[in-house]
Amino acid sequence: MPDPSFPQPQDAALIPRFAGLPTFMRLPISTSALGVDIGLVGVPFDGGTTNRAGARHGPREIRNASSFIRRIHHASGISPYDLARVADLGDSPVNPIDLMKSLDLITGFFSEIKGHGTIPISAGGDHLITLPILRALASTTPVGMVHFDAHSDTNDRYFGDNLYTHGTPFRRAVEEGLLDPRRVIQIGIRGSIYDPSDLDFAKAAGFRIVFIEEFVKRTPEDIIAEAREIVGDKPVYVSFDVDAIDPSQAPGTGTPEIGGFTTFEAQRMVRGLQGLNIIGADVVEVSPPFDLSNMTSILGATLMFELLCIVAARFQA
Amino acid sequence: MPDPSFPQPQDAALIPRFAGLPTFMRLPISTSALGVDIGLVGVPFDGGTTNRAGARHGPREIRNASSFIRRIHHASGISPYDLARVADLGDSPVNPIDLMKSLDLITGFFSEIKGHGTIPISAGGDHLITLPILRALASTTPVGMVHFDAHSDTNDRYFGDNLYTHGTPFRRAVEEGLLDPRRVIQIGIRGSIYDPSDLDFAKAAGFRIVFIEEFVKRTPEDIIAEAREIVGDKPVYVSFDVDAIDPSQAPGTGTPEIGGFTTFEAQRMVRGLQGLNIIGADVVEVSPPFDLSNMTSILGATLMFELLCIVAARFQA
Amino acid sequence: MPDPSFPQPQDAALIPRFAGLPTFMRLPISTSALGVDIGLVGVPFDGGTTNRAGARHGPREIRNASSFIRRIHHASGISPYDLARVADLGDSPVNPIDLMKSLDLITGFFSEIKGHGTIPISAGGDHLITLPILRALASTTPVGMVHFDAHSDTNDRYFGDNLYTHGTPFRRAVEEGLLDPRRVIQIGIRGSIYDPSDLDFAKAAGFRIVFIEEFVKRTPEDIIAEAREIVGDKPVYVSFDVDAIDPSQAPGTGTPEIGGFTTFEAQRMVRGLQGLNIIGADVVEVSPPFDLSNMTSILGATLMFELLCIVAARFQA
Amino acid sequence: MPDPSFPQPQDAALIPRFAGLPTFMRLPISTSALGVDIGLVGVPFDGGTTNRAGARHGPREIRNASSFIRRIHHASGISPYDLARVADLGDSPVNPIDLMKSLDLITGFFSEIKGHGTIPISAGGDHLITLPILRALASTTPVGMVHFDAHSDTNDRYFGDNLYTHGTPFRRAVEEGLLDPRRVIQIGIRGSIYDPSDLDFAKAAGFRIVFIEEFVKRTPEDIIAEAREIVGDKPVYVSFDVDAIDPSQAPGTGTPEIGGFTTFEAQRMVRGLQGLNIIGADVVEVSPPFDLSNMTSILGATLMFELLCIVAARFQA
Amino acid sequence: MPDPSFPQPQDAALIPRFAGLPTFMRLPISTSALGVDIGLVGVPFDGGTTNRAGARHGPREIRNASSFIRRIHHASGISPYDLARVADLGDSPVNPIDLMKSLDLITGFFSEIKGHGTIPISAGGDHLITLPILRALASTTPVGMVHFDAHSDTNDRYFGDNLYTHGTPFRRAVEEGLLDPRRVIQIGIRGSIYDPSDLDFAKAAGFRIVFIEEFVKRTPEDIIAEAREIVGDKPVYVSFDVDAIDPSQAPGTGTPEIGGFTTFEAQRMVRGLQGLNIIGADVVEVSPPFDLSNMTSILGATLMFELLCIVAARFQA
Amino acid sequence: MPDPSFPQPQDAALIPRFAGLPTFMRLPISTSALGVDIGLVGVPFDGGTTNRAGARHGPREIRNASSFIRRIHHASGISPYDLARVADLGDSPVNPIDLMKSLDLITGFFSEIKGHGTIPISAGGDHLITLPILRALASTTPVGMVHFDAHSDTNDRYFGDNLYTHGTPFRRAVEEGLLDPRRVIQIGIRGSIYDPSDLDFAKAAGFRIVFIEEFVKRTPEDIIAEAREIVGDKPVYVSFDVDAIDPSQAPGTGTPEIGGFTTFEAQRMVRGLQGLNIIGADVVEVSPPFDLSNMTSILGATLMFELLCIVAARFQA
Repeated sequence: MPDPSFPQPQDAALIPRFAGLPTFMRLPISTSALGVDIGLVGVPFDGGTTNRAGARHGPREIRNASSFIRRIHHASGISPYDLARVADLGDSPVNPIDLMKSLDLITGFFSEIKGHGTIPISAGGDHLITLPILRALASTTPVGMVHFDAHSDTNDRYFGDNLYTHGTPFRRAVEEGLLDPRRVIQIGIRGSIYDPSDLDFAKAAGFRIVFIEEFVKRTPEDIIAEAREIVGDKPVYVSFDVDAIDPSQAPGTGTPEIGGFTTFEAQRMVRGLQGLNIIGADVVEVSPPFDLSNMTSILGATLMFELLCIVAARFQA
Repeated sequence: MPDPSFPQPQDAALIPRFAGLPTFMRLPISTSALGVDIGLVGVPFDGGTTNRAGARHGPREIRNASSFIRRIHHASGISPYDLARVADLGDSPVNPIDLMKSLDLITGFFSEIKGHGTIPISAGGDHLITLPILRALASTTPVGMVHFDAHSDTNDRYFGDNLYTHGTPFRRAVEEGLLDPRRVIQIGIRGSIYDPSDLDFAKAAGFRIVFIEEFVKRTPEDIIAEAREIVGDKPVYVSFDVDAIDPSQAPGTGTPEIGGFTTFEAQRMVRGLQGLNIIGADVVEVSPPFDLSNMTSILGATLMFELLCIVAARFQA
Repeated sequence: MPDPSFPQPQDAALIPRFAGLPTFMRLPISTSALGVDIGLVGVPFDGGTTNRAGARHGPREIRNASSFIRRIHHASGISPYDLARVADLGDSPVNPIDLMKSLDLITGFFSEIKGHGTIPISAGGDHLITLPILRALASTTPVGMVHFDAHSDTNDRYFGDNLYTHGTPFRRAVEEGLLDPRRVIQIGIRGSIYDPSDLDFAKAAGFRIVFIEEFVKRTPEDIIAEAREIVGDKPVYVSFDVDAIDPSQAPGTGTPEIGGFTTFEAQRMVRGLQGLNIIGADVVEVSPPFDLSNMTSILGATLMFELLCIVAARFQA
Repeated sequence: MPDPSFPQPQDAALIPRFAGLPTFMRLPISTSALGVDIGLVGVPFDGGTTNRAGARHGPREIRNASSFIRRIHHASGISPYDLARVADLGDSPVNPIDLMKSLDLITGFFSEIKGHGTIPISAGGDHLITLPILRALASTTPVGMVHFDAHSDTNDRYFGDNLYTHGTPFRRAVEEGLLDPRRVIQIGIRGSIYDPSDLDFAKAAGFRIVFIEEFVKRTPEDIIAEAREIVGDKPVYVSFDVDAIDPSQAPGTGTPEIGGFTTFEAQRMVRGLQGLNIIGADVVEVSPPFDLSNMTSILGATLMFELLCIVAARFQA
Repeated sequence: MPDPSFPQPQDAALIPRFAGLPTFMRLPISTSALGVDIGLVGVPFDGGTTNRAGARHGPREIRNASSFIRRIHHASGISPYDLARVADLGDSPVNPIDLMKSLDLITGFFSEIKGHGTIPISAGGDHLITLPILRALASTTPVGMVHFDAHSDTNDRYFGDNLYTHGTPFRRAVEEGLLDPRRVIQIGIRGSIYDPSDLDFAKAAGFRIVFIEEFVKRTPEDIIAEAREIVGDKPVYVSFDVDAIDPSQAPGTGTPEIGGFTTFEAQRMVRGLQGLNIIGADVVEVSPPFDLSNMTSILGATLMFELLCIVAARFQA
Repeated sequence: MPDPSFPQPQDAALIPRFAGLPTFMRLPISTSALGVDIGLVGVPFDGGTTNRAGARHGPREIRNASSFIRRIHHASGISPYDLARVADLGDSPVNPIDLMKSLDLITGFFSEIKGHGTIPISAGGDHLITLPILRALASTTPVGMVHFDAHSDTNDRYFGDNLYTHGTPFRRAVEEGLLDPRRVIQIGIRGSIYDPSDLDFAKAAGFRIVFIEEFVKRTPEDIIAEAREIVGDKPVYVSFDVDAIDPSQAPGTGTPEIGGFTTFEAQRMVRGLQGLNIIGADVVEVSPPFDLSNMTSILGATLMFELLCIVAARFQA
């Protein structure tokens, strides 16, 4: 029997799903993470974007689209709001015109979340936001990572000497000791590259890279089995860049690459991560100005729900 | 010096305007009207729509767009949040597949608002919502009305015997004794009609109808001067159907009619109503599925702010 | 040699496909079903929609898009207009603001069609329309059903006590004795649910539910083979909710769920139904206000043509 | 009392305006002009377009949008279907890849219309279609013309030696003796030009050109008064290129020029032509692929209704 | 007789306007300003944007849209390519993730242009770009400015201590001695404000602010007469933020404010500046991701052509 | 070590990808093919289109989208600009209103390219453009062809007697001795047909047709193996109509057919053609007016890059 004190989404039988305030999953807003097991967080920052900006609008539109999501997972039967205290923790503070300050603001916000023992599932923002999140969550010991993306995001610099862009977070994270590179797997990598050495860092560091060419020859379940072996039982972060998915299913993103995997393959892979020691997760690079009929926001909200279910399952008595 | 206990919008210097929860004007949500001077309310109901539905999504998108609005009116200097306690009161309950029940739910919601002495400024929804609002606000004595619209909305029935549609609210309101027809002015009326008798009821009842053909020969200020004479000092309701405005400036609406007045003429007219004894107001027929680049939602939010300013001015010491 | 009296689509060699009146498949309009073997019908009603309305515009846009369809099926070689008298029977009468009356109007319209021995293939409208159609077609004896959908549509009530919505038609149809539940198969079911008991009714009644998780492990042909066993030789209705298909291929719908099957899988399944005793069929939940580049209307028109071909094949001498 | 045999639009009280077949004004289709006083015609040809094609889709979308139009003019009170037999005559035959043949097909179609004494009001199509229409209507004697447009359309040739494009029809019409140049007025002309001599032909021929710079200094009524003097009592054709109107109100067109007049100014000018000896009229250059929320199609349909009303007024007993 | 060595746009009689490379006005690209009288320049930077980014895409889409513009001004008869050597100078270098560096890059680029005696007409980018342009053009002596905008852009700081945003350029320009504040006029100012003191700096410095409320009571010609008096014969810069114009005519911008002036009023005002000592000009805040049917890009291109004509007129012998 | 004289794309580390002139792949423009190994060419002609025009805008938008493409192929490691001299050769001359003349202009343009020994990779335009290209490239001896398409494009005539449309090029090419029909393979064919004989010509001539029904039963690699056998070592042309791909991934096209193959299957097939004796290639029927979020233009640009890589591989020492 669920704890009656657990926060619950607005009841669609009373308030239609197009009505009411668009919080994540129609959950209550909580201004503090205190007493919250799993926090849904927005990080409206796209200052690390080197081409098309717009992911700053991701949290608002993902919240909006999350009204489509009902309470219970149809396949696993997981009912997250019965298992854990889940709340919308609002947006991290950011400064849209000051990149370095924003990184600090984000790290500060997530440090407080971590201080309450809350597991954050975040909606970006561009992929640079994962770096300050990891600075908060992995400050004491490097973590593993399951990383879905079209791009390795391990470039060194952009435009001469810029170390911090949405193309560099995981190189920085390794350099800063936030990621254990042998416990990192990147799935869905594809797309033309600037230089033959673009992936050298990731390979040398020990990342397991699953290019889309390998992906289509295996099943999602098979790849996830390998991912579980790689990341093991120790703390792991899950980062999902929606450009991993084909642009026909995720058009609202800044750097589309044709030939991605499908949303359902994504769902099957996320479900396969259940049972891992997940300390946090994010869905990034949803860029509403380039979206179509809210398709990518709906996808982002659904992936957050898939992530929520597998994290909530850890709270099952 | 403003009362420090008055609710204030989120500070855009701290939280960028694209971030944070999209309440009306970025104000706090209040689950009760108790202690609230002016309540901003959503009424997400379009069950009275005879052609293109979609206005049910109006409150959500107007809230979203209202993040564009800053604190203070540039022309009048009115700072509404310093003059009055203003809050987002959330959405009225509605039932999207039960018209008659929705009318009752809406009346109940607004009766409670009125019971607290709060003045509601509402975002529709289709124009039928004004009828149950008037049932709450004008239950004891008929009120006057300044009505901006392309259509008189005084038809009798639709599809045989349907008395309640977005084309009939003001006929019903007169019949029910909610409106004092000699204190009603309709501005912007135009568009082809079904029958020569379509406007007979309004004319016979004593409504003053300002067709767009007359409108363009006069100034907005001149028309509003006449409106003020007509409605006088007694309680008046202001109802603004966005289809009064030209479809190029208000494309997101269900029943567009070319040849409307401009947004700036609308703003000038609303400003001209300052000082009247306004007991409530609404902005209706914003239909996001037909909108373009959020243009109509932004318009709706701006009109709500214009209305808010003139109502707040009444609270000036 | 085809019967020269059979109605034929406008000849694209004379009238380009963007020209002329947009009837279904560019066929003649017939105001009566008399002498028509297969009738293409619009049912422009979405009053049962609990979230995003718009399917009322489905018939008009599907007609529009059906101008893309040529005369003959490229794979089966079926030439439907040579095998059967096919006509556009126009739209069923509906009342957009009166749900219960609309149900009766639709049943009346289809009863007349049935009275002429005509097999209707309908374009919705939301999924509630299937209930009044079944009331007409299955009035004497329960029928089987092949049902493609993301949702089981067997909920009990919405918003308290509303029995008739687009989420409830098949529960009502069983209760009313219109469907033989042991001869019903639902294909493509997925998406989060409100309550663990949401599917209990369908399962208890004996529906065969093929979730998308099972679907992707089998072939469309395999699933259809099972469907044919389940429905057998007796009368069967085919109902195709376009939200069964992935939102990237069917964005114009009210309740999208990511992770659906593909249009080509849909085509292969519909083709696999050839030879069944089909008494009627529909394509529902095409919602043009949310569509992109008419993609979903084109899909709807193509599915109607696929259905038309397999039904016309029954008329082959 | 209206003649009960006159064709009438579908009754919106029975068939909602989003339902039913989208003929012009929801009128019956007539395959012959015999017995028709005023014929509404589509000419889906844009083969004369030198920049952005798309006007071939104009007739279909204008028909679609014309469902918004009700029966009676609200300002003049004209009830066209009570005064005249009005019908949708379908589309002129055209050949989208053969310009010269299309000109002949169009002339043939309109010659037959003229043969029945029917006055055609046409929906284009690009502006070249006016030339073959004039060849049919003005074959015996040159007519006057009231021409609304951003461009004079009196260029000589395009791309070397092409005499027939949407930039040349009125030069050809003068050369062919179809237009009496001293009875031609062009209103709304503006936009950059290729060569200082671009307007020399029109000026030398005697066209009265009202540039937008002159237009804004006068009233629409004043300009129309001049137009009436120029065209006098003899036969006159009215040609309305929607790019005369500002692109914010007519975005769906191939050659937009900012700074046009408004839709309401257009309506006032068309109304001012009542009483002239109008032998035909058209609304051209509506290009749906570039339209927004059907705005330009709705405009096109409304202008056709305005034209219909002033032509029908001639049939008043 | 024009100098045959002057650069000319591609001839539309040979290369249709939808073909060929989309340079500004279809002019040749020049990698150096040497020998160029008037340079058309892109500044694809929006790093100063505090709300919705996207203006970085402005130069590309304005170039694209400028293919609509022909050679000669229809009203003034000015043929700019016969009067001056005009070229597309390409884009200024920028760094999308480094604001301070971008300011320097832009200043460097324009310093070189100025060094060749070339007058730049620029396409932004957000309004912050005007600051580094002024640093190059007004490095030795403060200039006057005619500034069209909905916002004064004289705020002090954003998000705590950020001095450089698109809301602050003109405060900085005064502080840096780039603008002579008594020779500055701002036209079209409107929209809600954050604080009553928002405009204090501009007023105290001596800017002439023409609010939209004053604007509608006067004519554009009258206001420009006053502007000419204010700026006098000394060097003046013209800065046109497209949000000065009504959002229905300029939807593609980051900070829309309803109630602006029209495109034609804009054109009349720009034309009225002919004869001033213009040292440079820009059109900023065109944000293609929010644009509709390229409307705002077409507007931007047309305004650049209007500016080009009045600047070219200075080269008339 | 690459030859330093080879043309290179603009460096994205200096000029962000949204900046600079949108040439194909950000390469230099070359006005002559002299010294160019591989020429990227636009053919902005859609005069052969029988239904929805718009492909004339394909070259411009594909160029625009090609800014997304980086330098090196991630899977094959091919670095085309190090292997061959590649340049943007601009657009072929065309005449949008004169089909026969355009065919000659295109053949002339490509004859010159062929004269320089340059291999052209072209962006259409509609599919008729392949005919005049083949007239230039295969003037002396018939070539083989790998043809990806939903349609066989071997119809005889349209609209009576029109021999040249986008539905007929390959019938004409066989008749003119440009194609060796036994060395032609068509992949992806599907969609309803006008007449049972539609494919008779292709079959009789000896084309190998791989319908989509066969395609889904095999792997792309298997099909390409067969294609390689069919075309052998002799000269072959590759023609890619984007409507071969599913409309959800290629919405911007004139004649969409649901149920196509995926972009990644397309990429795998193109890659499989490496090593063939490719004398030219094209990507046609990208129609920007019907595109969504530039999805089809990005696809077109990526396919051009895939083609470029396999052609460049031939230049490897």
